[in-house]
Amino acid sequence: MKNDSAGSMDKIVSLAKRRGFVFQSSEIYGGLNGCWDFGPLGVELLNNIKQAWWQAMTYRDDVEGLDASILMHPKVWEASGHVENFTDPMVDCKQCKARYRVDLLFDMLPKKSKKNIEDKVKITLEAEKAEINEISINNYFSDNIDLFTADITCPSCGNTDTFTNARKFNLMFKTYMGAIESADSIAYLRPETAQGIFVNYGNVKESTRQKLPFGIAQIGKAFRNEINTKNFLFRVREFEQMEMQYFVKPGADEAFYEEWKERRIKWWTDLGIKRENLNFAPHPADKLAHYAKAAVDIEFNFPFGFGELEGIHNRGDFDLSQHTKFSGKKLDYFDEQNKERFTPFVIETSAGATRGFMAFLCNAYDEDEAPTSEGKSEVRTVLHFHPKLAPIKCAVFPLVNKDGLQEISRAITEDLQKSFKVFYDESGAVGRRYRRQDECGTPFCVTVDYDTIKDDTVTIRDRDTMQQERIAIDKIKMYVMEKMAL
Amino acid sequence: MKNDSAGSMDKIVSLAKRRGFVFQSSEIYGGLNGCWDFGPLGVELLNNIKQAWWQAMTYRDDVEGLDASILMHPKVWEASGHVENFTDPMVDCKQCKARYRVDLLFDMLPKKSKKNIEDKVKITLEAEKAEINEISINNYFSDNIDLFTADITCPSCGNTDTFTNARKFNLMFKTYMGAIESADSIAYLRPETAQGIFVNYGNVKESTRQKLPFGIAQIGKAFRNEINTKNFLFRVREFEQMEMQYFVKPGADEAFYEEWKERRIKWWTDLGIKRENLNFAPHPADKLAHYAKAAVDIEFNFPFGFGELEGIHNRGDFDLSQHTKFSGKKLDYFDEQNKERFTPFVIETSAGATRGFMAFLCNAYDEDEAPTSEGKSEVRTVLHFHPKLAPIKCAVFPLVNKDGLQEISRAITEDLQKSFKVFYDESGAVGRRYRRQDECGTPFCVTVDYDTIKDDTVTIRDRDTMQQERIAIDKIKMYVMEKMAL
Repeated sequence: MKNDSAGSMDKIVSLAKRRGFVFQSSEIYGGLNGCWDFGPLGVELLNNIKQAWWQAMTYRDDVEGLDASILMHPKVWEASGHVENFTDPMVDCKQCKARYRVDLLFDMLPKKSKKNIEDKVKITLEAEKAEINEISINNYFSDNIDLFTADITCPSCGNTDTFTNARKFNLMFKTYMGAIESADSIAYLRPETAQGIFVNYGNVKESTRQKLPFGIAQIGKAFRNEINTKNFLFRVREFEQMEMQYFVKPGADEAFYEEWKERRIKWWTDLGIKRENLNFAPHPADKLAHYAKAAVDIEFNFPFGFGELEGIHNRGDFDLSQHTKFSGKKLDYFDEQNKERFTPFVIETSAGATRGFMAFLCNAYDEDEAPTSEGKSEVRTVLHFHPKLAPIKCAVFPLVNKDGLQEISRAITEDLQKSFKVFYDESGAVGRRYRRQDECGTPFCVTVDYDTIKDDTVTIRDRDTMQQERIAIDKIKMYVMEKMAL
Repeated sequence: MKNDSAGSMDKIVSLAKRRGFVFQSSEIYGGLNGCWDFGPLGVELLNNIKQAWWQAMTYRDDVEGLDASILMHPKVWEASGHVENFTDPMVDCKQCKARYRVDLLFDMLPKKSKKNIEDKVKITLEAEKAEINEISINNYFSDNIDLFTADITCPSCGNTDTFTNARKFNLMFKTYMGAIESADSIAYLRPETAQGIFVNYGNVKESTRQKLPFGIAQIGKAFRNEINTKNFLFRVREFEQMEMQYFVKPGADEAFYEEWKERRIKWWTDLGIKRENLNFAPHPADKLAHYAKAAVDIEFNFPFGFGELEGIHNRGDFDLSQHTKFSGKKLDYFDEQNKERFTPFVIETSAGATRGFMAFLCNAYDEDEAPTSEGKSEVRTVLHFHPKLAPIKCAVFPLVNKDGLQEISRAITEDLQKSFKVFYDESGAVGRRYRRQDECGTPFCVTVDYDTIKDDTVTIRDRDTMQQERIAIDKIKMYVMEKMAL
């Protein structure tokens, strides 16, 4: 019963809310489209993912960390190409002001309007001897929408011939900084963290005395005014990225591109994502973004199909060259050994922390059989998180609420809380307490029983094998910490 | 030579840039006012502060974590009072469009205009038998600015009688979400994280089964369109907060208010802030914010004087009542034992992570005398961070770059990097390497020398005492970890 079934998405979303992983943002006000809040268990999982990435990427000699601001100078986004290119074509109904993404409009049209347009497109396609099918018709319509304005009936107000020509709609959120709202005071919420790294290339290089090759890594929020949010945390308006730009000497870029591809997919599998749920999807040469020499996505098998989790890109010298051009500040490198000056190439690893969260959640979700206290078996919901990622590392239960077992359990809880997140639970049968912890992915449950009073040992039960072993109280912390290590 | 001197702020800002703690945001484009980027050492310090807070505040049974989105439903800010009240009064010059905060304008006026206004205000104050001094004149002018419009000369364009009446200027950054920019699509960047907690009160209570008293803690960015940014990281437009709202039964609020006051000031001192640099500044009853029953600031002695670091507030039931009123969703509590239903009171602890960063940096900064290799002494700059907060925990040096000492040093570095941030340095005299680490606050430096080859020991040198001791290689990790513990 793995998460390849159609229903598993609903189950995961429902579990996520019920157990406090993810809530809709501003839910009491009807929610805010494309924004989500991470609840008590969610924030732990998200933080653990981010910390695991930070450790793997920056606890090394050749990568430095950074935390740049979300609001950046508008020139940054001119240089990067976002002001010009980070757009979707849109059309507006002049009558009711509804706005539509051009590539999604065709399927939303009222039947008669759609039929009209279809007929016209077919004539053109036939004349061009092009293939005629749903996709080619939709594509022709989208690419040439201004030819069909008179035939479009607004899906919202029902009026015909009320649409504007297609216009570019920028996906960056815009605001104004300072006292006056004018063209001079525009600031954008960053749509990616990468540019914060490029504009700091010089400062980081100077302050750390790094030599090539070296990287700069950053975790942070980014914002995109997506018109169509969908698939839970997959396409949202506010999300978190984990990006690293690795600066290398031109010519060395292809080898480092391969190296980082392998290193990055290993990171996901080391933390428990099954390799068969991951896929390398190279971007074909004719579909590469304007800045990219080569690009590949690491995709995860989400319940709705494979979707991008991380991109690895060979960006050449595009970014540093652009910022040099727009800022007038030289962002280059002087190679002392060979006495040559050049603009480094960049290998980028750009992972979604929010998408990673969703992937780890989907990957961990399982329903299996567990024994009941009556010797029968029952279906349990369990999240098989790697102990490093699990929101709660260990739960502590007194077997019964008397004879001092609670006091011992509380003392163990307090001691473990100095090192990691622990949950104390004294309510209900122990079997039920196991189920509650299984459902939120707690890898270890410690039970304090009557033997504990005699010999200072407890049982520690493994979430995945459901086996218990007996260990000394003063060994619990190390036991859990060792399982948390990669 | 402590940071109470006037010049120490400049020294700290300069060190912060040179060593990679803090850079100006978008610096290559001339910077973005009120925004800062945290460099390689800065991001470690900031993360360590946030983690220390998170551990202290949420690794306990009665406090849950949360990470709500930055973009929130606009109704949230109507309920909280921010749309109505989070404003500064401003005036505009109709001629040149310059905008001024009313309370700051008087001191900026050209001499003649200022004199005119002063004379008029004095007549009024004399008639009212009020005290006449610089402050009372400025206050009267600010409070009654519309009476003086004809006398105001614009400090920017020099025209007189060109000002508008005073208007409220909201400090929230505004953007539009979705396809259309209209009143219906306004979204604000949150000006505080607290409201994310209040609107999630019900979801957190349900999903965690917490009973009163319990808290919800959150760390995250907040944004304020301050007209006058100043004092480095102290008054900025983008900053990070660490807030906790503790929900209690009405009547229990005053005791918990006192308890959290003490617990919070202890947190700062436990991490090394000197108690004499901290101050409790209670808000007088007539200056309390509209939501507060009682409020006190924990202030730190910054180089520019005492300034707020954290606020502890008794917010009564203001927030949950307002959101109940505006959302129509009951945000209350049912006490099973006494079978009574009520709206909890809230004790808030609201600390600045960004201001905390600046406080820890100022508090740590010192210049003292260190011995040189020639037996003389020199002035050294040192940051006395608590080991838990220090960006780099340990540096590793080969005494010389031959005879295998580099290889041993690298192996030690790699092993320690599995647990914390380590810096390997093989360049320059060991004395100079110490200085570099002192200056960025690294508490421990390990040197690999010829004895290491014989007996697997190294010297470990303490930043503050500058004393060395000899320890076994396999004891380094535990040695450092123990010093990091609180």
